[in-house]
Amino acid sequence: MVIIMDMSLVVTGTIGIDTVETASGQAEGVMGGSCTYFAAAASLLAPVRIVAAVGDDWPEDHAAVLSGFSGIDQAGLEHRSGSKTFRWGGRYHDDMNGRDTLFTELGVLEESPPPVPAEYADSRYIFLANTHPAVQLGMLEHFPDRAIVVADTMDLWIDIALDDLKALLVRLDGLVINDSEAFLLSGEANVVSAAEKICSMGPSFVVVKKGEHGAYLHHPEGCAALPALPLKAEQVVDPTGCGDSFAGGMMGHISARNSCDLATIKEALAWGTVAASHTIEDFGLAGLQSATMASMQNRLEQFRSITSF
Amino acid sequence: MVIIMDMSLVVTGTIGIDTVETASGQAEGVMGGSCTYFAAAASLLAPVRIVAAVGDDWPEDHAAVLSGFSGIDQAGLEHRSGSKTFRWGGRYHDDMNGRDTLFTELGVLEESPPPVPAEYADSRYIFLANTHPAVQLGMLEHFPDRAIVVADTMDLWIDIALDDLKALLVRLDGLVINDSEAFLLSGEANVVSAAEKICSMGPSFVVVKKGEHGAYLHHPEGCAALPALPLKAEQVVDPTGCGDSFAGGMMGHISARNSCDLATIKEALAWGTVAASHTIEDFGLAGLQSATMASMQNRLEQFRSITSF
Repeated sequence: MVIIMDMSLVVTGTIGIDTVETASGQAEGVMGGSCTYFAAAASLLAPVRIVAAVGDDWPEDHAAVLSGFSGIDQAGLEHRSGSKTFRWGGRYHDDMNGRDTLFTELGVLEESPPPVPAEYADSRYIFLANTHPAVQLGMLEHFPDRAIVVADTMDLWIDIALDDLKALLVRLDGLVINDSEAFLLSGEANVVSAAEKICSMGPSFVVVKKGEHGAYLHHPEGCAALPALPLKAEQVVDPTGCGDSFAGGMMGHISARNSCDLATIKEALAWGTVAASHTIEDFGLAGLQSATMASMQNRLEQFRSITSF
Repeated sequence: MVIIMDMSLVVTGTIGIDTVETASGQAEGVMGGSCTYFAAAASLLAPVRIVAAVGDDWPEDHAAVLSGFSGIDQAGLEHRSGSKTFRWGGRYHDDMNGRDTLFTELGVLEESPPPVPAEYADSRYIFLANTHPAVQLGMLEHFPDRAIVVADTMDLWIDIALDDLKALLVRLDGLVINDSEAFLLSGEANVVSAAEKICSMGPSFVVVKKGEHGAYLHHPEGCAALPALPLKAEQVVDPTGCGDSFAGGMMGHISARNSCDLATIKEALAWGTVAASHTIEDFGLAGLQSATMASMQNRLEQFRSITSF
């Protein structure tokens, strides 16, 4: 008898120590990073493996927070001796949309990528969180059984590593990207046209993240558009990690359903929206720590009611 | 036997002659005005009465366009001798969001408001398109049988006639307002909080229009959020009148259903979205001229499919 493990979702990305100021307050030295937010959100829906590195300075209480998410497989978390954990500091504008980076200390991100455990080789759903596209591309060889590869990117790589990014795009099934970055990559100023053009560069589907304005999906079977979950000012505490949580909820659902047809990805966008709505309610991972499958399901039904007519 | 006429929707607003430049081209002397766009959109769903004035210079071909919408009752259209029709010129930014006003010639808008025909007195659904709030308030006395009163407003009146606007707000059932103006009126920078605060100033429900990002509804029974209908760059020809068309589609549906419960208004927002998507596809009223109940219904089902999960 062959047993097919469903623990086949993996994320490669960063683990960070963040210092954040928003209109709601500030938090110093909280857990951050794309891998962290993605994995915490995805783990509420499906088991998820992580590939990331931290330094000697990674706080014990951060390790405890990560271990609190029982669905996260930490075999690919490298504790790199003599290195520093990635640190980021930022201040959000009063409208909670724009933000300024106050400092970045790359630490382990300046060194070689973390090794991928051999037991991860059977991973089927691969999410390459934002980093240099050549590093993202290099990760793929570790996942020979990959079924669906989705990546995120940012303006920096569009500006300084466009050829590498183009080489990555043709290897992707899906791209998740912010609207401003979709405009930059496509040369279009319209979300639908930008998504369509990016699909012509490689990926089968593109999800354009519009922050508080929701998300747009361009997919071979059709398109989808969803608003964000409406939240009052006092519910919006810290937007850090919302995009990664959105991708985590999305990929968690895709992995749980073992499909990426239009209907599945539409529902996946809704799960991503719900995951992001938990993240934004507190600093660091605290919002996702208080989330459960039940609270996610409850909010999904609320979201369905708010958006259906 | 008492016969209840369902021809009970009325709009008071402007009829204009517009000159518009967008990334798609330019159009000189096309039909514009809040009343025009509202009535054309509403008439696809329900009969609608108009209260507006034009001057001697109102072009015959504009009159023919308006008459082409068979659901519009023009008894309240005043042809004012010796006066000029309102004219507006504007240029949209390349992203089709922001715009600059190039000129405004108020014409009849500087004079007394148009008279309301006595036969309009049984109107039940009243839409007060954007003008001075004291004029909007003065219109109400002509509609003693009014059931639901909804208004639009703009930043100018928030800035220079706030007391009049506040006096209007307590008389309204609903307010339709742009997001930036909702922020200005409420002092909030968050759509949900802004809508909630404006409701505390009078209206039972508030619809915040977010342009290409859709609309948000705050209603006593709950809330709703819808994206705009996704359109490619080449489908976005001229955003002028989209907000008024949205309100027209919305009020047309409310009037046709004779209800303003949450379910009806949610569906009304979808009809408004569909009407606006027709308007934006061409200059002036040309987009709505080529719309039919069938094309509206078709697009509504497409919109439902795109937004449901």
